[in-house]
Amino acid sequence: MSLRYALLALLTAEPLTGYDAAKRFGGSVGHVWHAPDSQIYPELRRMEKEGLIEGEQVRWGPKSTKTRYSITDSGVLAFREWMDSPLDYAPVRDAAHMRAAYFEWADPDSARDCLRRHIDHYADQIACWTVVRAAIVDATNATIAVRLRKYPAEEHERIVAFKAFAYDGLIARGEVEIEWARKGLELLDKVSPEKY
Amino acid sequence: MSLRYALLALLTAEPLTGYDAAKRFGGSVGHVWHAPDSQIYPELRRMEKEGLIEGEQVRWGPKSTKTRYSITDSGVLAFREWMDSPLDYAPVRDAAHMRAAYFEWADPDSARDCLRRHIDHYADQIACWTVVRAAIVDATNATIAVRLRKYPAEEHERIVAFKAFAYDGLIARGEVEIEWARKGLELLDKVSPEKY
Repeated sequence: MSLRYALLALLTAEPLTGYDAAKRFGGSVGHVWHAPDSQIYPELRRMEKEGLIEGEQVRWGPKSTKTRYSITDSGVLAFREWMDSPLDYAPVRDAAHMRAAYFEWADPDSARDCLRRHIDHYADQIACWTVVRAAIVDATNATIAVRLRKYPAEEHERIVAFKAFAYDGLIARGEVEIEWARKGLELLDKVSPEKY
Repeated sequence: MSLRYALLALLTAEPLTGYDAAKRFGGSVGHVWHAPDSQIYPELRRMEKEGLIEGEQVRWGPKSTKTRYSITDSGVLAFREWMDSPLDYAPVRDAAHMRAAYFEWADPDSARDCLRRHIDHYADQIACWTVVRAAIVDATNATIAVRLRKYPAEEHERIVAFKAFAYDGLIARGEVEIEWARKGLELLDKVSPEKY
């Protein structure tokens, strides 16, 4: 259900074709709410049927057209209502922590690999989030650039600050995951020393 | 798919009826891999069909019987294989961070509420994880108590340490979420001061 609010969030910046929405999604709201293209297209069609967005045919190449979606007043209202409603929290489903809890069943070298991959995974994620955050802060990110054009200059700092704040949270969480995995490697060295 | 490994993990401690497995799940592996009872019962039946666990009829009250499931050699093998295989990471789907990124669309008081609920949510979770962690460390937790009986005393410290380590990770993550939400409240005070 959150996918539609992610798409509404994206469309508050500017009208987009399904193709552009899917492309923008990955470099923007998709960092906090991942969705594959195969979910994005049908969700846009459902949202159009429900009147949250409306499509118009636009030129696409010399002989073809595409549907470009704009958020409607009813879409803006739905997005604001969602923004002002309490959030549900999904219960924890965390395979890495689950596995760590049963490391006595793993080969110690596999357990080490698992934690090293955990570190690599979050290091990659942090690198990516850091790049996106920087492009938001200097407004070179495509979505933030068009978004800011709709607001008076005195609002820009605030809008950018909220987005940077969201990425700060992801980065801080990634750092905690890396720190946790490093402690796990130390624990394994203590209780299951590597054999040479 | 991870649900079956969570159930296998639980059944490595002792044989359980479906009812007891569902009950134990919530106080044990369910903290890292949540599943509702409605998923646990059918998964146990599928696992029995696939030979990962086997059921035997046991007395239940004066006139009735119930199926009690034990892990089979093939179940132990499947669990070990999972333990030694690389993990897939689910992409981020985080409604709280998504919402924070668009706080310019929220009423500032709703944004504050959202962050305060975030703090309360993780404070509750941390309190719960801390209690479970303590019961694991002093072996008063029902699942760890029976699990340890199967191992020589010199293995106990290691087994307990892995489980405590998993909870340490959850707790550290919860603390980072609280810290993040507190920074968000400071940010809101700066960019959207409360009106008196």
